[in-house]
Amino acid sequence: MSRVVQKYGGSSVATAEKIKRVAQRIAERRRRGDSVVAVVSAMGDTTDDLIDLARQIDARPSQREMDVLLSTGEIVSSTLLSMALHVEGLDAISLTGAQAGIQTDEVYGRARIAAIDTARLERELGTGRVVIVAGFQGISENFDVTTLGRGGSDTTAVALAAALHADACEIYTDVAGIFTADPRVCPQARPLRDIGYEEMLELATTGARVMHARAVEVGAIYGVDILVASTFDAAAPGTLIHRETTMEQGNKVRGITHQDRIAKVTVRRVPDSPGIAARIFEPLAAANISVDTIVQNASVEDLTDLTFTVAPGDLEGALEVVNKLLPVIGGSGVVSAPDLGTVSVVGTGMASAPGYAALMFRTLFDNQINIEMISTSDIRITCVVDAARVGDAVRALHAAFELDRG
Amino acid sequence: MSRVVQKYGGSSVATAEKIKRVAQRIAERRRRGDSVVAVVSAMGDTTDDLIDLARQIDARPSQREMDVLLSTGEIVSSTLLSMALHVEGLDAISLTGAQAGIQTDEVYGRARIAAIDTARLERELGTGRVVIVAGFQGISENFDVTTLGRGGSDTTAVALAAALHADACEIYTDVAGIFTADPRVCPQARPLRDIGYEEMLELATTGARVMHARAVEVGAIYGVDILVASTFDAAAPGTLIHRETTMEQGNKVRGITHQDRIAKVTVRRVPDSPGIAARIFEPLAAANISVDTIVQNASVEDLTDLTFTVAPGDLEGALEVVNKLLPVIGGSGVVSAPDLGTVSVVGTGMASAPGYAALMFRTLFDNQINIEMISTSDIRITCVVDAARVGDAVRALHAAFELDRG
Repeated sequence: MSRVVQKYGGSSVATAEKIKRVAQRIAERRRRGDSVVAVVSAMGDTTDDLIDLARQIDARPSQREMDVLLSTGEIVSSTLLSMALHVEGLDAISLTGAQAGIQTDEVYGRARIAAIDTARLERELGTGRVVIVAGFQGISENFDVTTLGRGGSDTTAVALAAALHADACEIYTDVAGIFTADPRVCPQARPLRDIGYEEMLELATTGARVMHARAVEVGAIYGVDILVASTFDAAAPGTLIHRETTMEQGNKVRGITHQDRIAKVTVRRVPDSPGIAARIFEPLAAANISVDTIVQNASVEDLTDLTFTVAPGDLEGALEVVNKLLPVIGGSGVVSAPDLGTVSVVGTGMASAPGYAALMFRTLFDNQINIEMISTSDIRITCVVDAARVGDAVRALHAAFELDRG
Repeated sequence: MSRVVQKYGGSSVATAEKIKRVAQRIAERRRRGDSVVAVVSAMGDTTDDLIDLARQIDARPSQREMDVLLSTGEIVSSTLLSMALHVEGLDAISLTGAQAGIQTDEVYGRARIAAIDTARLERELGTGRVVIVAGFQGISENFDVTTLGRGGSDTTAVALAAALHADACEIYTDVAGIFTADPRVCPQARPLRDIGYEEMLELATTGARVMHARAVEVGAIYGVDILVASTFDAAAPGTLIHRETTMEQGNKVRGITHQDRIAKVTVRRVPDSPGIAARIFEPLAAANISVDTIVQNASVEDLTDLTFTVAPGDLEGALEVVNKLLPVIGGSGVVSAPDLGTVSVVGTGMASAPGYAALMFRTLFDNQINIEMISTSDIRITCVVDAARVGDAVRALHAAFELDRG
């Protein structure tokens, strides 16, 4: 008998009918003798609907109240899944984040799990019950409800798997695992059998939406093996995220990710003095504008161009902040481009083998795709390109790095 | 500066727009210097919608899970009202039943409040905040969510008023107070200026839906004066429920209540032996059938007719139970009538003055309304009549007892 933590996403529990099917899957597993904890997201569009409701009252609602409000979505689905398990003849109980002992800091809207008190979970599991945990939420030291941010239910599941010393952590979703590229953009994309934590993190932060980056981090820290698989296609094996042992073998590029729409802001010819970056990016952070890639060109005559990317919705706000700063920091002007995207090549192999960057740039050049910006990590190369060419870039790179072959 | 507990019902917070108007009312009160705790029900039909959702999964869902599910409705409205108060420029915080310290027993679906730990409430009020409490819910000793049953938010409000030693407890609803009869049935009905706890209890249990009976009980025990008034009609003074001092004065009948539809079951000629009632009503209770009025006729030759009323939806189940019992207890047969109603006359005066019952029976007779059953308490007379004649009975009695005059 092994102990498993499963997570079912919002699309897997979107209707009463789907909840019943999820219950059947869990029941099968339980009847095989396994001990099961299931983490659930809110049903379908519930979270968005609740956000809309709040915005009808306050355009910028209190984040503390927002967290309490949004936490109800996962509580609803957890109780319904528990009821569906009763129909399957199983003993089951739903627990809120607070009841499941998920203690967080008090950063509303993106709280981090501080610790998990597993006493109640162990007690319920000890009686043979299936335990359903409302994902995405926790409780602060002051007994206030917090949420972990978008995709937080993944983090709940991986953290519970670590705290409960589970034998397996399974993330069920509406796709068959982690793909070499987004299948909607690249028909040749195929699911990966397995992938390492670091690579998965790079994929998640550069556009792969299947798995929440923070959940992967928690998995890496505690060595939790995470299987990402399809809820309703039991035949597909899914992708195992783990401490990879096959690093030296085969194709070193594992996936191509992309972001459809980003905007770019360049501050021209600012004096390259110490602290200049902080003087630009601190006010942006204060305005709650999340900056993605940052590139600073080499100085010419102690003047430098500083370029960064933001979400399109943040462009106007970013320009406002930067234009206000310009007289203070002394740049020659600000230019922006709204219709850009990114394409990234990810793989641990590239850390030790040369030629990956060259192949990427050559491939884009051969396809007449202009590169606007470049940024890299040890295991990733990202190019900012025209938004209209993102799909072409993904398909070309997928072929060039021989990901089509499996 | 006084301290007030207010309660806003589901129709008062049914939309974002109405929530904003409630916030304006609360803000006015707060700005006058009063300290405010507001208890809210779930928005509009939320509770019914959640029940429907649960029934799509399980026709008889676990009551423990049902309580967690339903509690989310009040949590949602409490957070939205808190946001709306922020828009009004007030400091406000929503608290769940658990956070508000409302400790209950573990009888899911109809839990009773055991105690209220006011530490957090006092702390929040101490900082000048308006505190919004999610009504209808509490937390058991085992940290499980419970609900107080239909209308439970009234009970939350009155219990909080008692625990916080509030100067006032105000129940806001979509009608202008407690009426001498239901205005939809009896156009002559008028709102009462005040009424005693006992009378209000009788009105609440015999058909007046405005106020939850358990809330009145709590009010009576702790001596909480309860004002029932209209949310959006500030001009109407409402009705004060209190320990009445005007008992000896004026008209002794205070109100006429009715129930539109009840069903009657008679077990014919059962042996009048000790314990016979228990042997019939214990199996009914076990089948979760709530029995209302019970009448046992005088025995003839040690055989008696036992009659009771149930909700129409329970008639089939009740007949099944009783028919199964018949061979065991030895009655001559079971008869039932599905289309009945009740009409009740309530007033403390009738405990000490004669003639009320006579006037009631005479009035019904004069209107050719046949009486099927009679039951009485010290301050109430209830007649079971044909469902089709309930409205006529209410109007005739309202006139006969001179309630039209005000």
